[in-house]
Amino acid sequence: MVNYPNGQKKPDSVKKQVKAKNLSAANRGMGLEKFINDANLYYSENNIAVITKRPTPINVVKINYARGAQITNAYFEKQSTTDYNGIYLSKYLDFEAKSTKLKTSFPLSNIYPHQIEHLKKVLSHGGIAFFIVEFISLNEYILMAAKDVIAFYEEGLRKSIPYAYFKEKGKAISLTFNPILNYLPYVKEMFNL
Amino acid sequence: MVNYPNGQKKPDSVKKQVKAKNLSAANRGMGLEKFINDANLYYSENNIAVITKRPTPINVVKINYARGAQITNAYFEKQSTTDYNGIYLSKYLDFEAKSTKLKTSFPLSNIYPHQIEHLKKVLSHGGIAFFIVEFISLNEYILMAAKDVIAFYEEGLRKSIPYAYFKEKGKAISLTFNPILNYLPYVKEMFNL
Repeated sequence: MVNYPNGQKKPDSVKKQVKAKNLSAANRGMGLEKFINDANLYYSENNIAVITKRPTPINVVKINYARGAQITNAYFEKQSTTDYNGIYLSKYLDFEAKSTKLKTSFPLSNIYPHQIEHLKKVLSHGGIAFFIVEFISLNEYILMAAKDVIAFYEEGLRKSIPYAYFKEKGKAISLTFNPILNYLPYVKEMFNL
Repeated sequence: MVNYPNGQKKPDSVKKQVKAKNLSAANRGMGLEKFINDANLYYSENNIAVITKRPTPINVVKINYARGAQITNAYFEKQSTTDYNGIYLSKYLDFEAKSTKLKTSFPLSNIYPHQIEHLKKVLSHGGIAFFIVEFISLNEYILMAAKDVIAFYEEGLRKSIPYAYFKEKGKAISLTFNPILNYLPYVKEMFNL
């Protein structure tokens, strides 16, 4: 251990490292969305696919036109469909990304009934529908076909999907360098595209 | 003409009628969006297609959490892609809806360069891409393949697309009862789906 003659306990660089580590833990919930957005940007720039995030809908109550159409009163609304859709290998793709801090299961309360209805309709029209679920504590990202999640959801027997069901039906996505969450090759394999 | 003995010039009901008429003229720009949203709802409910509007992205600057996550400062952002996408007959659809008050042409300044880039990418992946253009003064709604708009845009010779070009390349959509703007049969015919 190095001694600091001036009585300083830790140099700034060490403090910064500690801070950055805490920040990364705190921001983990944002990680999945950022990973997917980064991957989508990579897919777009490399002409692999066009997949976009639907903006969170906002109910605008009041606009101040005197200040350049500044919105001064508004509320977030629930997404009525899913977060992402687009085109890949001529196929329509539609999916939802969800994170859980639990280690052994994924609570079904994270999925809204209208999202299930939306994905069922997408499937009925021949689209590719899936979930990407992040198990934050396990640092795992699992691709699940929407049909398997819907089957569990409609069975109505349990309030959460066991982690074991994800391991049985889904595909764990290995993190890579660029993009970090390169999920499309797994989609291609799962759906035989 | 009826006389009002108390000196009142117009009864309230007449005033209201005049006001409502002006409002309807002022709101004409909203007509196309409402027609398309209504058609999309009809398509969803009748299991014909799943087509959704991307919410207008909003840049949220300030949130008051003490008042139930009220947004107190935010601004509208430009849509970075197009307004609508979805799935129809197993095909990925992507389109933009635009209105103009002009009678003889459609100004290209209504279309943003990133929308053209987005539609080109969609086409390169095998998607169906188009515009629905409303000529407000003519009460006409014209379906145009994105490739024809892109060709004109990239030629770079004129600042607006002549109405005659729309009549030559596009398909005029006849308004019906329910949905009013039943555009999908025209899409089916134009793209041989």
